Amino acid sequence: MLGKCLENVKEKTPLIHNITNYVTVNDVANALLASGGSPIMSDEPDDVCDITSICGGLNINIGTLNKRSIEAMFMAGKKAKELGHIVVLDPVGAGASKLRTETAVKIMEAIKPDVIRGNISEIKTLALGSGTTKGVDADAADTVTEENLSSMVEFAKGFSQKTGAVIAITGAIDLVADREKCYVIRNGSPMMSRITGTGCMLSGLVAAYAVANAEIITDGVAASVCLMGLAGEIGVSDMKENEGNSSLRNHIIDAIYNMDGDALNKGAKYEVR
Amino acid sequence: MLGKCLENVKEKTPLIHNITNYVTVNDVANALLASGGSPIMSDEPDDVCDITSICGGLNINIGTLNKRSIEAMFMAGKKAKELGHIVVLDPVGAGASKLRTETAVKIMEAIKPDVIRGNISEIKTLALGSGTTKGVDADAADTVTEENLSSMVEFAKGFSQKTGAVIAITGAIDLVADREKCYVIRNGSPMMSRITGTGCMLSGLVAAYAVANAEIITDGVAASVCLMGLAGEIGVSDMKENEGNSSLRNHIIDAIYNMDGDALNKGAKYEVR
Amino acid sequence: MLGKCLENVKEKTPLIHNITNYVTVNDVANALLASGGSPIMSDEPDDVCDITSICGGLNINIGTLNKRSIEAMFMAGKKAKELGHIVVLDPVGAGASKLRTETAVKIMEAIKPDVIRGNISEIKTLALGSGTTKGVDADAADTVTEENLSSMVEFAKGFSQKTGAVIAITGAIDLVADREKCYVIRNGSPMMSRITGTGCMLSGLVAAYAVANAEIITDGVAASVCLMGLAGEIGVSDMKENEGNSSLRNHIIDAIYNMDGDALNKGAKYEVR
Repeated sequence: MLGKCLENVKEKTPLIHNITNYVTVNDVANALLASGGSPIMSDEPDDVCDITSICGGLNINIGTLNKRSIEAMFMAGKKAKELGHIVVLDPVGAGASKLRTETAVKIMEAIKPDVIRGNISEIKTLALGSGTTKGVDADAADTVTEENLSSMVEFAKGFSQKTGAVIAITGAIDLVADREKCYVIRNGSPMMSRITGTGCMLSGLVAAYAVANAEIITDGVAASVCLMGLAGEIGVSDMKENEGNSSLRNHIIDAIYNMDGDALNKGAKYEVR
Repeated sequence: MLGKCLENVKEKTPLIHNITNYVTVNDVANALLASGGSPIMSDEPDDVCDITSICGGLNINIGTLNKRSIEAMFMAGKKAKELGHIVVLDPVGAGASKLRTETAVKIMEAIKPDVIRGNISEIKTLALGSGTTKGVDADAADTVTEENLSSMVEFAKGFSQKTGAVIAITGAIDLVADREKCYVIRNGSPMMSRITGTGCMLSGLVAAYAVANAEIITDGVAASVCLMGLAGEIGVSDMKENEGNSSLRNHIIDAIYNMDGDALNKGAKYEVR
Repeated sequence: MLGKCLENVKEKTPLIHNITNYVTVNDVANALLASGGSPIMSDEPDDVCDITSICGGLNINIGTLNKRSIEAMFMAGKKAKELGHIVVLDPVGAGASKLRTETAVKIMEAIKPDVIRGNISEIKTLALGSGTTKGVDADAADTVTEENLSSMVEFAKGFSQKTGAVIAITGAIDLVADREKCYVIRNGSPMMSRITGTGCMLSGLVAAYAVANAEIITDGVAASVCLMGLAGEIGVSDMKENEGNSSLRNHIIDAIYNMDGDALNKGAKYEVR
């Protein structure tokens, strides 16, 4: 089924409006193009309603937010929901600053995104009003492990129930939950944390996969999470002598580009709880 | 002659002021450096007049425009024209939103750029006040084809006559026209549309080539369009097993870096109508 | 000793807050991750005090400055100094515009950064209120050469005395000076000037190395300058047929990723005067 979700993206070429940070925006665009989607970026309040109207989905990423882009996030989010578009929220750095935490919580409450994707610290911040964040990376104390897996699965399902959103928590073990089921995904490589932007790229992919699989959105999101993790594994295995994190970034995007449904079905490592 | 245009860029190292979107700005800078030009970026109204004054040309790209950068575009454009500098307009997404369409039209009318480079949807929007745009990519219905080539050549020449600008329309077939002649260019590869930024990089190169070939600006712009297309062909042919669009981006910039006048003369595929 | 400075970064994983230009920001993030540091970016006045508070150091780079980010630079800089954090100033383009010159001078005077890193034109602008800048690259007339080396070493020491900052002047020959000693560093390759961002990446590394080596800050900064130059040499030697500046960028970041203390000790070319 996950392979079919991938093929749906390649067939439907979903156009995704991204309001995203300037650190990783180029990688988000190229990852979307690699997946078969199509990206457009706009963060000016006077521009975003027109732009989001011609798209199929909206990806809101609050990294490097500013007053102007925050206004644009709310305007675009409201418009996208009016039009029945998919909205994804990536609460980058929620918990690390008051502005980020408040902005993420307000977007969650006012826009009611269809998917929320973050690391465990960010998601906990949204869910519990707490959590610690070390910069934009998850705090080690907050990790999803085999030991706390059952309670984390329940937490993810409960947060989905509360928000109405599919919840994607990514880390060493990834969780993708709606109120009834939770994908537990074990793709990926620790080396992915040595490049910037794997989370941001994934949020772009989540949007494309949710749009192209709107009837089975949880499965679509799980497929994109498996894709990113598997692309990370392939990217690491493609590294040659003397290569490092910059080459890894290229290998990962290239692996997304070359992935087909069969390869994803074979490589995806998950269980549903 | 096109090869000579390339050598002129390498000899003169034109310094280009870019007001451009944050999605592809790094690639624009590296493509300019690869070509032998030199980039500087600034989009703050209080900064742009000083910056553009020390440059030879100005590249205005309206992707990810905002109120501040729009103000900077007009100030820098006016200053650059006062100083007799070359100004290039890239109307990214004209037709996709009211703000983009209006901004592009106003810049065209108020600044009178020396070159306008866009895809056919964007150029038609500027020329006819119509045209459809699918995000920032050209709409398929708007393509330049062998069938409509004669009328498109006339359209390009007529729009050049009307605006006084060299018109560069890029797609599967590229057109570079002034009021009297039109280069019809058949370099490039469809795979170039799978990376972000080939259009933006080209607009940077157009500026450098126009500055370094100010007496034969139409030929200079045609040379840069052939260069980008040929670099795309070389980039695709340089792709190794498992490589995808991220590697292609690197190969294209590398091919620009390694191109010399002879290689451009040999590889350029064009006719003049 | 320089190798030990590198190992300290890998052990301590300093978290660096970067207010930096959108041209090279992705490379700055990946270079920091390559070195063993951790980057976070924020330039909104309402966000920067919280963000810088959880970091160990602040890297202020004035390329593509705007009114909002300038305000953020002063707020973050003041907060960082209150907390005893390391602050690095990269005065990109000082001398090229009134706004950049004034902003750099004001930051230098009001924030009193711990390290100032720029090319010779930029540093001269700060030191003497003069200097010429060709865009964001140093003017050829302003180069540090074997002929003027003694006087440049004295200049660097004097400027360090005056400002209280470690002064890093990078170019064909690099100088890293405090009031008493000056590292004269001869690593690097001329081809590094054909990619954008080597200076910006270095300023990020300077911050990480200064934070992780706070007791021997001058040596830490010298280690980061040797690292960047040596990574450039390795990057150039890693270039294969048909490769150009885009591949060189990847090779340089990869070389930073793969560097260890022994390799830096062996490859560093410097004397202390």
